[in-house]
Amino acid sequence: MKKVAIVMGSASDLPVVEKAITTLRDYGVPSEVHVYSAHRTPLEARDFALNARKNGFGVIIAAAGMAAHLAGAIAANTTLPVIGIPCKSASLDGMDALLSTVMMPPGIPVATVGINGAQNAALLAVEILSVEDESLAAKLSASRAAAAEKVLQSDREITEKFNN
Amino acid sequence: MKKVAIVMGSASDLPVVEKAITTLRDYGVPSEVHVYSAHRTPLEARDFALNARKNGFGVIIAAAGMAAHLAGAIAANTTLPVIGIPCKSASLDGMDALLSTVMMPPGIPVATVGINGAQNAALLAVEILSVEDESLAAKLSASRAAAAEKVLQSDREITEKFNN
Amino acid sequence: MKKVAIVMGSASDLPVVEKAITTLRDYGVPSEVHVYSAHRTPLEARDFALNARKNGFGVIIAAAGMAAHLAGAIAANTTLPVIGIPCKSASLDGMDALLSTVMMPPGIPVATVGINGAQNAALLAVEILSVEDESLAAKLSASRAAAAEKVLQSDREITEKFNN
Amino acid sequence: MKKVAIVMGSASDLPVVEKAITTLRDYGVPSEVHVYSAHRTPLEARDFALNARKNGFGVIIAAAGMAAHLAGAIAANTTLPVIGIPCKSASLDGMDALLSTVMMPPGIPVATVGINGAQNAALLAVEILSVEDESLAAKLSASRAAAAEKVLQSDREITEKFNN
Amino acid sequence: MKKVAIVMGSASDLPVVEKAITTLRDYGVPSEVHVYSAHRTPLEARDFALNARKNGFGVIIAAAGMAAHLAGAIAANTTLPVIGIPCKSASLDGMDALLSTVMMPPGIPVATVGINGAQNAALLAVEILSVEDESLAAKLSASRAAAAEKVLQSDREITEKFNN
Amino acid sequence: MKKVAIVMGSASDLPVVEKAITTLRDYGVPSEVHVYSAHRTPLEARDFALNARKNGFGVIIAAAGMAAHLAGAIAANTTLPVIGIPCKSASLDGMDALLSTVMMPPGIPVATVGINGAQNAALLAVEILSVEDESLAAKLSASRAAAAEKVLQSDREITEKFNN
Amino acid sequence: MKKVAIVMGSASDLPVVEKAITTLRDYGVPSEVHVYSAHRTPLEARDFALNARKNGFGVIIAAAGMAAHLAGAIAANTTLPVIGIPCKSASLDGMDALLSTVMMPPGIPVATVGINGAQNAALLAVEILSVEDESLAAKLSASRAAAAEKVLQSDREITEKFNN
Amino acid sequence: MKKVAIVMGSASDLPVVEKAITTLRDYGVPSEVHVYSAHRTPLEARDFALNARKNGFGVIIAAAGMAAHLAGAIAANTTLPVIGIPCKSASLDGMDALLSTVMMPPGIPVATVGINGAQNAALLAVEILSVEDESLAAKLSASRAAAAEKVLQSDREITEKFNN
Repeated sequence: MKKVAIVMGSASDLPVVEKAITTLRDYGVPSEVHVYSAHRTPLEARDFALNARKNGFGVIIAAAGMAAHLAGAIAANTTLPVIGIPCKSASLDGMDALLSTVMMPPGIPVATVGINGAQNAALLAVEILSVEDESLAAKLSASRAAAAEKVLQSDREITEKFNN
Repeated sequence: MKKVAIVMGSASDLPVVEKAITTLRDYGVPSEVHVYSAHRTPLEARDFALNARKNGFGVIIAAAGMAAHLAGAIAANTTLPVIGIPCKSASLDGMDALLSTVMMPPGIPVATVGINGAQNAALLAVEILSVEDESLAAKLSASRAAAAEKVLQSDREITEKFNN
Repeated sequence: MKKVAIVMGSASDLPVVEKAITTLRDYGVPSEVHVYSAHRTPLEARDFALNARKNGFGVIIAAAGMAAHLAGAIAANTTLPVIGIPCKSASLDGMDALLSTVMMPPGIPVATVGINGAQNAALLAVEILSVEDESLAAKLSASRAAAAEKVLQSDREITEKFNN
Repeated sequence: MKKVAIVMGSASDLPVVEKAITTLRDYGVPSEVHVYSAHRTPLEARDFALNARKNGFGVIIAAAGMAAHLAGAIAANTTLPVIGIPCKSASLDGMDALLSTVMMPPGIPVATVGINGAQNAALLAVEILSVEDESLAAKLSASRAAAAEKVLQSDREITEKFNN
Repeated sequence: MKKVAIVMGSASDLPVVEKAITTLRDYGVPSEVHVYSAHRTPLEARDFALNARKNGFGVIIAAAGMAAHLAGAIAANTTLPVIGIPCKSASLDGMDALLSTVMMPPGIPVATVGINGAQNAALLAVEILSVEDESLAAKLSASRAAAAEKVLQSDREITEKFNN
Repeated sequence: MKKVAIVMGSASDLPVVEKAITTLRDYGVPSEVHVYSAHRTPLEARDFALNARKNGFGVIIAAAGMAAHLAGAIAANTTLPVIGIPCKSASLDGMDALLSTVMMPPGIPVATVGINGAQNAALLAVEILSVEDESLAAKLSASRAAAAEKVLQSDREITEKFNN
Repeated sequence: MKKVAIVMGSASDLPVVEKAITTLRDYGVPSEVHVYSAHRTPLEARDFALNARKNGFGVIIAAAGMAAHLAGAIAANTTLPVIGIPCKSASLDGMDALLSTVMMPPGIPVATVGINGAQNAALLAVEILSVEDESLAAKLSASRAAAAEKVLQSDREITEKFNN
Repeated sequence: MKKVAIVMGSASDLPVVEKAITTLRDYGVPSEVHVYSAHRTPLEARDFALNARKNGFGVIIAAAGMAAHLAGAIAANTTLPVIGIPCKSASLDGMDALLSTVMMPPGIPVATVGINGAQNAALLAVEILSVEDESLAAKLSASRAAAAEKVLQSDREITEKFNN
């Protein structure tokens, strides 16, 4: 199976990113986690991206805050799908990171998820791998069913509490 | 090869979406184009999404404006990767569609591209299919090289014009 | 009397929604509370909406956060008036939910109240039922008078404190 | 049948509001159109609102731009449901009118539709009247079916054009 | 001397407004404080405004949050200058109140100060009264001089601390 | 009678400002118009402000766009009331000028009107002068009555057109 | 004298950037213009930045739109001062480019000017070179004086027109 | 070596500004810290700016919040490069200060860094001085290398923790 890379711009993003790591593990998808900064270690970020496909990666997830260039910088150096997680930082509530990640110029797309949306980034990576992997598709379906059941259970509890 | 679906919420989105159609054709990726509305034909949208994987689709692109629910409604009914194009409409400059598309709750990701970013949506779809398709990866690399060459050519012209 | 449904996208919305439940009870309006997710249990949400009118509902209140599609998804499947409560979540201060709820495309309106405006959602539901129910109209007038009296009492206290 | 009032803050709002007038006529719902300004004729606006219920109105639609106080000023003087249409004006793209209309304080709700959403305002009014009027409910269902058919027809045309 | 009225939309605005009360007292300007709600006691608000000039007021300060209509509602019923204080509330960081207060339609101005800017509202009221009152002008100049001296003192302390 | 100064940051603001000039003339209020730039002629702006009171001015209106510092720079050098008109420029729809004008720090208020709100700025100036001038108050009341009559006339025309 | 580089992300930015080119020529500052894309020719952008200091450049101006990463990508590879021009594009009025340019993470500053502010970018570059160049400082002072004179001339014309 | 001035609009900005002071000290760049208010001590701010070049300064850093005019007011009175730090205050998350600082009119640039970006402001000042100072350029390169090493170390730790 292709691996998923999770790259964050700073070790301080780890609390946000951790949910992506555990989600991939839940699906049995092999992953590698790295800290590469678009601005402080641009060469390492570039080299990682350039070699990602031949190193067995299928998807790269990149998380960064503020003027979040990491996902775009990775995407500029690979033709693998790159998923961007805009991270909320001390001001502007993540809007800066969202726009810096999603408004990519023509030619270099970044698949952007919601602000701090690490779990969805991982699920999107699994979905991408599932295109050619029936067993992952089955696992995703099972998770969806479990999530639905959880909502239904909430509904039963709320019904119990309020509708009698 | 898996097909890519391009779904728009209204025929009026076609001028934005057309760039995605032609881009997929340029890559030789089979595609199907549909008009399904999350609000006016929710059942058709749902049925399409539910059956997309078994009907041979690998990726679904969904374009909608305003309170753009289409991509999310599709994503809720498939485990295939869904790419959302937020379309700019008569007010708010596309910000409404962007937030409605990208800020998905945990569990149901939408891979969002920039406002009116139809070309990037198509390229992202190709990138996703390229994970298991070397020939698409090669085509993407060739396009990147061509785009780079175009920038370099611009640079030569600008250099010619201004730097002598 | 027609019932009012209160639907929330997740049990975590209950703290916001609770004010709507108690407000309806204060008016003696029968209500039912449910958890249906536009994305995790779309079919249940749809079925509820499709059958709401014949099941004796007059108004449906739907509360959701982030890319808040629930009110729109309900509205797409009923011709009853649907009231949307945009819920504030961890980022963007509720602006994402507000735009996702209010900017509905032509044909499928959602009666949107302010961010986290659960009390106003319930009052709007009562107002809607009051169109054909004199006794509810009288209760609303009485509440308005009581609210006015409370403001007047505040004014007397402030006058006492500052204007002597 | 209860009447629907359509009130605009200035005659210059008529081009936006006209779609509400024609939509109500399409449904055979009796309506009255007025120009009342929350700031220039506050007394007339108030008197209209105070007497609306006893004058046979069931719903009031209020359209205004900029610091759009009209819907709130009407709502403060009636317990009928009031629908607010935020109108886009020369700057800020309607965001000023949207926030001025939707963010009502507790106790006085305004059922807000999207920016310039006159058609949806009228449809919401019809939905409100349909709560106790089966024939309106039937007409709404028929319109929904027609709108769905229109989308399906678009889909057939697009299919014809692109999917062969 | 003309009096200054300070009107707030709810007693809960008092913590913000209090700074205006004390500032006016510092200047020896007679004031009256009231709670009038544009939506819950519109008639009292209107009556106060209508009679303010003949009751000896020279300026009215109005503070409100969310869809802050109070200043506009007061302004609609008096030709005295009305100063609006947009109050920050639970979401949107005061932007809703700012736009609802400042974006008044032609004909009915509101002199808007910054979000929660109660002190500035009071100072603006004093400035307005100072147009025809030399002694207030002198007091304002003295305050400005004192404020300048405070900045200069800060500068001396900072210089002491950092520039040696 | 005290004069009103109208200061603009650039001659290019004249099309916006002109409405203030004519409005003041309509009220018979003596005015002076100037171009002073907070950044290009800061000394002239400062000198004008410093001497405005003793030169017979009662109110200063300042119009500027972008990072609109002019009103604040004037206000810093006078204790007369200063009215700020935020002017819309080529980007951001006037939001930059609005925030730069209204969010003044404690101690130096600017009475801000809406974006491009030149007419309201002039009316606010007249209201300020009317505090001690009965004849101006009477003129303002007459204008309000005329404006109300214009709305009522619109209402009659609309009633004629739509309500028969 | 050190040279100033003007780098744009795409030849389509030339109409914005041209004002920077002519401004530098007006000051007799040697410049070089290039098209380098952070995403399409990242290596060329990097190489240019890495060698800029030793190639005789003193300042680099970088102009880009949308998720404008160019200035940051240049800044990551040089310790020369980098000036960013956020360019307005088809949606969001330049806010995306502004936040993507200015909100740089700690360690890699970008000196950001206003949206489409090419002239100011050039002037800032001249100011930077003027720190050690008296003659440039003198030219800047002369320009300031000329700009001031132009404002004063506007003032005389306006005075002529309106104040008699 | 030229000195760097750090000017703040209020002593309350010191916690933000302190990082700039220590950063300059780390680089051995002589600095002076001052409190000057654009509105409360405009003359002192102006005099400082007017004399800064001849007093041996090379760069001026100005920090202010809300309608942050300080950097612009300084820039209007010097041809030295002025760096603006927009400070976050009690509302609007720093957006007011950002727009007030960066959107300067043509002719008077302010080199704006991110909200509360004091460290980057100091680094930018060092970069400006480094244009003609090889030893500062070397120090900056060393810092960049150290920052890169820190990221690489983080990467090693994360690799250790997650990739085995």
